[in-house]
Amino acid sequence: MLSFDSCVEWLKSHDDYLIINHRNPDGDALGSAAALCRGLRQAGKRARVLENPNMTERYAEWVREYGNGDFEPRKIISVDLADENIIQTNASELIGRVDLSIDHHPSNTHYAANEFILPGKASCGEIIYMLLRALSGGIDSETATLLYIAVTTDTGCFRYKNTSPDTLRAGAELLEAGAPIDLNRVLFMKKRRSRLALESMIIGSLEFFMDGEAVIGYITSDMLERSGATDDDMDDIASVTGQVQGVETSVTMRQTAPETWKISVRTGQYSNADLICAEFGGGGHGMAAGGTIEGSRESAAETVKAAVRKHWKEK
Amino acid sequence: MLSFDSCVEWLKSHDDYLIINHRNPDGDALGSAAALCRGLRQAGKRARVLENPNMTERYAEWVREYGNGDFEPRKIISVDLADENIIQTNASELIGRVDLSIDHHPSNTHYAANEFILPGKASCGEIIYMLLRALSGGIDSETATLLYIAVTTDTGCFRYKNTSPDTLRAGAELLEAGAPIDLNRVLFMKKRRSRLALESMIIGSLEFFMDGEAVIGYITSDMLERSGATDDDMDDIASVTGQVQGVETSVTMRQTAPETWKISVRTGQYSNADLICAEFGGGGHGMAAGGTIEGSRESAAETVKAAVRKHWKEK
Repeated sequence: MLSFDSCVEWLKSHDDYLIINHRNPDGDALGSAAALCRGLRQAGKRARVLENPNMTERYAEWVREYGNGDFEPRKIISVDLADENIIQTNASELIGRVDLSIDHHPSNTHYAANEFILPGKASCGEIIYMLLRALSGGIDSETATLLYIAVTTDTGCFRYKNTSPDTLRAGAELLEAGAPIDLNRVLFMKKRRSRLALESMIIGSLEFFMDGEAVIGYITSDMLERSGATDDDMDDIASVTGQVQGVETSVTMRQTAPETWKISVRTGQYSNADLICAEFGGGGHGMAAGGTIEGSRESAAETVKAAVRKHWKEK
Repeated sequence: MLSFDSCVEWLKSHDDYLIINHRNPDGDALGSAAALCRGLRQAGKRARVLENPNMTERYAEWVREYGNGDFEPRKIISVDLADENIIQTNASELIGRVDLSIDHHPSNTHYAANEFILPGKASCGEIIYMLLRALSGGIDSETATLLYIAVTTDTGCFRYKNTSPDTLRAGAELLEAGAPIDLNRVLFMKKRRSRLALESMIIGSLEFFMDGEAVIGYITSDMLERSGATDDDMDDIASVTGQVQGVETSVTMRQTAPETWKISVRTGQYSNADLICAEFGGGGHGMAAGGTIEGSRESAAETVKAAVRKHWKEK
């Protein structure tokens, strides 16, 4: 693990950077990579972000230009990448070759030759912000915008539990540096019609059990067809069932084939999503885990319900 | 208008405060009033908040105790009250008798003998926070919690456009002073079943016009009955139709009697809600206005649509 100063020094002393991130990249991964790229360029370096084939349209307008740059990369930097197993799909030949990992995941598997990991940070964007200030003394409004996208994505626009006083102060400084407050509306308060239609159908499908403290919501192929929802509408879709007041455990069952269900489990303070999903061969974290179940809707739901009951309020 | 210092001095030099706010009080009104009351008590004053008969259950647990206090009030302070016309319903005999108005509304009608109004602030809570720091040097965790409720309510938990760098910094300091980050989940990420059911029905009712850039959503008596929604579920309900991506003008029509519709209009960058609602005798602000229309659902909707068309993208 590099110290902060030696990480800045490392960035200053090399050149020709290729920046990569994880598959299904979110705003923190994309915003952090683009901001780092821009900051390195402003510090006189050649840098580009490896285009990510799984990027959704949502972020394209802000990050697209950082894919350009005609040079042979000499140093590979990963951002927001906890594990090489989830490296972006077109970068598998770079596994084992990452020169610097900049990350905020406590679960980082330490795959890189050098690393600067601050697991206490809510977003990778906050770490990039620290580094860029040291690298070039300040940031311009475009960089502020990219970092603001990063910070707000991983904190649900300052709503999630990981939001710290430092996160809010970073947000304040990024607004002052020129990030437009209107991003909040664009990214967090507006939804596509297809997404809204799907959410409405999920809410209509809710089945409560455990005296109303547990709930299952469904996303069937038929609902996907009727709503017109695509992969672009699936960001954090499991949170739809999780928003019901008084619910400790929420389950989302998404049909991916006639007899195949992708399961997402979210738990609150008392239950353990990881233990629940382990019952049917899945896993994840204590508060968010997933897995797959084969069978009819009814039998799959029974399997999940039994798992929820078995580990009820076990933490 | 008092200066900041003279406002602090005024609070120090009097006693026996009764604090009042507006009807249908929100988290900013209630949190600001309770925080001011607590801060005054800690500065050695007698103070109480006049109980508000229209308070929803949502905030009761935090603010209830500040209704206590057995003394004859000698000074009346209003918080977050722009106009005496909307004074809380059980305080009409106090109209014309307010000694100090603390407010952040640009539209404040200057009804009080003394006032401390900062129209640039996103929330009244930020003003109370400034005053309490000067009054007693600091705030405890209970006061921080009340002020955090105030600040986050009026900014949609730091998402609305009125959120300034100062708002985010106030949020950071309130978290450090002991406001629990879990409030975000409780107040902004959890919804009652009845509210969710109603939202789902509103989304199912959406009618688009103006090439999809305008939309009407309905809340009929039947939907209220089927969802079980009550007044406690109506906070900011007009934002449900307003969240559709690509929509410039959104209308919510709520049935309050068989042939009576309460209309809420929200506009984006280009149209003017106030002009639209003036067409049927209503009014409000440029981006949010309302009114009432009598008639069948179809005729009421036609009236609104005609008004939207007439003022289309007129600002």
